[in-house]
Amino acid sequence: MPAQLDTSVIDSWHRNTDPWVAAIRNGEIESRTLVTNAAIVDTVRAHAPQTAVDLGCGEGWLVRALPEVRMIGVDAIAGLVEAAQAAGGGEFRCLSYEQIAQGELQLAADLAVCNFSLIGKEAVEGLFVAAPSFLRRGGHLVVQTVHPLLACGEQAYADGWREGSWAGFNSGFQDAPPWYFRTLSNWIALFENNGLRIREMREPLHPQSGKPASLILVGQLPE
Amino acid sequence: MPAQLDTSVIDSWHRNTDPWVAAIRNGEIESRTLVTNAAIVDTVRAHAPQTAVDLGCGEGWLVRALPEVRMIGVDAIAGLVEAAQAAGGGEFRCLSYEQIAQGELQLAADLAVCNFSLIGKEAVEGLFVAAPSFLRRGGHLVVQTVHPLLACGEQAYADGWREGSWAGFNSGFQDAPPWYFRTLSNWIALFENNGLRIREMREPLHPQSGKPASLILVGQLPE
Repeated sequence: MPAQLDTSVIDSWHRNTDPWVAAIRNGEIESRTLVTNAAIVDTVRAHAPQTAVDLGCGEGWLVRALPEVRMIGVDAIAGLVEAAQAAGGGEFRCLSYEQIAQGELQLAADLAVCNFSLIGKEAVEGLFVAAPSFLRRGGHLVVQTVHPLLACGEQAYADGWREGSWAGFNSGFQDAPPWYFRTLSNWIALFENNGLRIREMREPLHPQSGKPASLILVGQLPE
Repeated sequence: MPAQLDTSVIDSWHRNTDPWVAAIRNGEIESRTLVTNAAIVDTVRAHAPQTAVDLGCGEGWLVRALPEVRMIGVDAIAGLVEAAQAAGGGEFRCLSYEQIAQGELQLAADLAVCNFSLIGKEAVEGLFVAAPSFLRRGGHLVVQTVHPLLACGEQAYADGWREGSWAGFNSGFQDAPPWYFRTLSNWIALFENNGLRIREMREPLHPQSGKPASLILVGQLPE
C-alpha cells in the first residue's frame, strides 16, 4: 500500500496534466530552459549510455532530447504518458513507482534518470531498492533535484513532508502536490544504503544568482 | 614545492599559535562547543577505530577526546604540536601535508580525521592522493568542514581562494590565513577521484539557526 501522502502526490498530478504539458512545451519554467534541462542532458551524455530509462518522464521531453539513446520513458500519470506517446521519440509506459518496486519494470538499462521526479517518500525509497531490477550491473542512476539548502527556505533543515506550491506557474495549475524534503545527508544515504556508489555531483549554476539551480547526483551499481 | 597560497596558510598559523591554543582550550568558538566538537567525536566513534590519525590536529583536543583510540596527531605548526605534546593523551608529530604527500607518514590507521583542517588547495589534494600511505585498506577518511552553500556568502558559488577573516575571534589573532573555497561537487570529486568511496554525510544542526553548522564527509578506501 502506498503511503497516503505519496498517493496525494499522484492525485495532484492527475489534476495538473494539461497545464504541465503546456508549461514544459512552451518553456514556461525559466530555471529549466536556462539551466537544468541542459544540465541533465549533459550529465546523461557524459555516460554515453546505449540504453536508458527516464523514471517520471512526464510528457517525454528528455527522451526526445536524447535521440541517440535507446530510451524508455515511464510515468505514473496516464495523461502524461499519452502526451509523451503522441509526441513520440521513444517508448513510453504507464507504471507507478510502487509497480516498479514490485518488479514490473524488468530492464537492464545502462542508465536511469530521474529529472525532478522524486517527490515522495516511500514511493521514492521503493524505487531505489528496486534499482537492480531496471539497471544492469555497473549501471548509473542520475537524479536531478532541488538543492537541499536552497530549497529549505526558512524552515528547519530536516527531512519531512512539506506543502506544495505552484507559485511562479501559470494560473491553470491547482492543488499543488505535497513534497518530501530530503537533506543532502538523506540523499547520500538513499544511494549508499541501496548499494549505489556516489560517483559524482553536479551543481549547475543559475546565471543570474551565481548559485546552484539544482543538485545532480550520480550513483552506480556495483559491476 | 608548495603553492604560494598554501604556504601563506601555514605562515599565518605560525603567527596565531598562542591565541588559537587559548581559544580552543577556553571554549571560545561557540559553534565548536555547541555542535561541531561533539559531531566529529560521534562520527569517529561510529566507526570504532582501534587506531586513528588526526591530520591538522592543532593543540590536540580531539586526540584527548578519544582516549579509547590509539591515536597520532599530526600538524605542520611546531608551536601547536608542542602544545599538544605538553597536554599529552597521544603521540604528536610535526609534519606538513606536503611531507605526508611525500610518504613521510607511513601508517595503516583504521581511520584518519581532518577537523576543519583542510584549508588549502594543492596541499589538501596531495593529502588525498597519499591516503593509502596512512590508511589501511578499507580504512575511513572523515572530514569536517564548512557547509559549502552556507559558507559561500554573497560570492559566486565557485571553487577558489578567498581572503580569510578572524571576525568573531578574540583580538589576539592577526593576519587571517586565506582559504580555498570548495563547492560540494568539488569535495565529492576529491574523494571519488582518489578512490575514496563516499559512505556518509552528516550535517550537524546549529540549535539556534536550525541550519547545518558544518558538513561531515566520510570516505572509505577499497577493502
